[in-house]
Amino acid sequence: MKIFKEAILPLGFKANGIACGLKKSHKLDLALFYTHKPAKTACKFTVNKICAAPVKINKKYLKVDKIFQAIIVNSGNANCFTGNPGIRDAEETARALAGILHIKKERVLVSSTGVIGKRLPLLKIKKAIPELAAGLSHQGVSKAKKAILTTDTFAKEITVKFKIGKEVVTLCGVAKGAGMIAPNMATMLAFILTDANITQGALDKALDICVDNSFNCISVDGCMSTNDTVALLANADAGNKVIDTAKHFDLFARALGIVCLELAKMIVKDAEGATKFIRIQVSGAKDFCEARTIALAIANSNLFKTAMYGENPNFGRIASAVGASNVDIKEKDLKIKVSPLNKKEIDVCVSINRGKAEAVVYTSDLTPEYIRINAEYN
Amino acid sequence: MKIFKEAILPLGFKANGIACGLKKSHKLDLALFYTHKPAKTACKFTVNKICAAPVKINKKYLKVDKIFQAIIVNSGNANCFTGNPGIRDAEETARALAGILHIKKERVLVSSTGVIGKRLPLLKIKKAIPELAAGLSHQGVSKAKKAILTTDTFAKEITVKFKIGKEVVTLCGVAKGAGMIAPNMATMLAFILTDANITQGALDKALDICVDNSFNCISVDGCMSTNDTVALLANADAGNKVIDTAKHFDLFARALGIVCLELAKMIVKDAEGATKFIRIQVSGAKDFCEARTIALAIANSNLFKTAMYGENPNFGRIASAVGASNVDIKEKDLKIKVSPLNKKEIDVCVSINRGKAEAVVYTSDLTPEYIRINAEYN
Repeated sequence: MKIFKEAILPLGFKANGIACGLKKSHKLDLALFYTHKPAKTACKFTVNKICAAPVKINKKYLKVDKIFQAIIVNSGNANCFTGNPGIRDAEETARALAGILHIKKERVLVSSTGVIGKRLPLLKIKKAIPELAAGLSHQGVSKAKKAILTTDTFAKEITVKFKIGKEVVTLCGVAKGAGMIAPNMATMLAFILTDANITQGALDKALDICVDNSFNCISVDGCMSTNDTVALLANADAGNKVIDTAKHFDLFARALGIVCLELAKMIVKDAEGATKFIRIQVSGAKDFCEARTIALAIANSNLFKTAMYGENPNFGRIASAVGASNVDIKEKDLKIKVSPLNKKEIDVCVSINRGKAEAVVYTSDLTPEYIRINAEYN
Repeated sequence: MKIFKEAILPLGFKANGIACGLKKSHKLDLALFYTHKPAKTACKFTVNKICAAPVKINKKYLKVDKIFQAIIVNSGNANCFTGNPGIRDAEETARALAGILHIKKERVLVSSTGVIGKRLPLLKIKKAIPELAAGLSHQGVSKAKKAILTTDTFAKEITVKFKIGKEVVTLCGVAKGAGMIAPNMATMLAFILTDANITQGALDKALDICVDNSFNCISVDGCMSTNDTVALLANADAGNKVIDTAKHFDLFARALGIVCLELAKMIVKDAEGATKFIRIQVSGAKDFCEARTIALAIANSNLFKTAMYGENPNFGRIASAVGASNVDIKEKDLKIKVSPLNKKEIDVCVSINRGKAEAVVYTSDLTPEYIRINAEYN
């Protein structure tokens, strides 16, 4: 298994990114990922009851079949809390792109990130689509990965290659996010493209497992986005012997696990205003969910996060967060260890003596800069 | 019904407060409330699984009977996460005071607030108890109310008087808290003293109702304390016709409701670093709990709180917090109204068109000063 720290598109994929005027900064704000033939697709979406229009239409299209051929992503506007007009805007985006690409609109996955509650500037997007599609190329991922960013300070990208027999399979992931939902401008989006030949069942199962251990194990501010999306497209161009839930599955899941976890960790490392990268391991739990519940309770405690920022060894706050997590923990069973606080990366180990399961969650500290970013932007 | 903005002890109660050296600042840090005859008592405690030693022994004493005669409170040390030695320290505090007052130790309610995870300086407390008890007086409440404070910037106090027949009944409440659990130094404690002649059943029921609508409807940082305690003592000295759940109950509950809600609002007004006092009303819910769940989801959203601080009308964050609350809300049913943000007091009204119940929650904004207080103290 080979890991590359940059996005290298798998066989049969192209991408592009342009500036269509959604961002006042004139930075890239419209991305397109495209596969020359339809790809099996697995998706995970936010569970927020108020979810964005593109999430709604993606769910609708997924009911037709789990086959997509293009992903169009705009940054700068979340197209959320925009009612029926917002849904029409998202569908119109899919339709316009589908027309240019000569595919069905149900083969277009739409994604948005940015301010909540404002209508999408649809005309700007529709006007830009021909240029966006015309510029598709294998190298274009270097623009696409930037066009999905909002408050991010760096692009999140990774590529993993492995072999099945003589065939090289490539997984390429790009993501954006600087908070679970961060300020006006932020959310968590990840797009993972692979040329693997894989069954739909194996694709869905692998994404379920990997998201649970990565994107569902990070928290910046505990705020759940309305737009969070992870999409995994597999176009089979690698020509490998088929991966199913019995054969080669572990290998594929391991590669996908690396892609998801590394992207998730990059999101935390880029957390708004953060000065610390914090790894919280909870062990001795009855099951993974219990361990993760406790780890997230610590990760989401403002008092814990401010203590980390202040390098303040006030570990009572960890005990207090664990006790507030609703898991029935005995004080005598609770052990807490924390690595030196004057470093940029901090390890918190908590054991609760209830079982053998564990979970690892990644988070950041809470800083005045987080407040400045989220208070001042308008 | 008459409301006084200061603590005026009911008949038969005395109090005192001294500095015994727990606080480095040499401020008052040890308080005593005393009734000349045993009082029926109702209590509510934190539901944090990691709760402080005094909470544990109070629960034990309450099992003996619901009769108390004294409350001793120290600030500067929470006596929490201190294991069996901490429990012995709390019991020893009760025993030492009981000896001086010539009462059983099970009649002493013990309360602590301050740093978590450090042993209580028991010797300092034991040494100070004789002076503390000797100085008891009706006016001493002016010292007691200060001795329970930590990061608070003002004392929280209120008195309500009402008549049953010709008899005047007095309820006097004092509280501390500058965060649900705030930094090293903070928690929510409230002590309410009354000379009402009331049955145990009516006392318990009234406190249940009033706490649910007051102290359980505030949030500063969403962090649940290990020490939170509300204690209500009734010594019957007013000589009124007995209040039970059928007779005079509504009157008593209304007076107690005022005491609890005003103290709760004072805690939010003194929230660490806060610049805004925010009232969140959720209406159109199926029941009170559903309404409060949504209101607290908004109150605990860092993105909402930073937007309030920045006077940033980004109401998508309110929609996002509502959607993340796990109540099954339809976007089209969600209405949000917010009063002008450039004021110190802000009203947020949310309606969800699911039923007729409502709840009001009070909270504060999240500011760089909150982070400074919680990061820098050590």
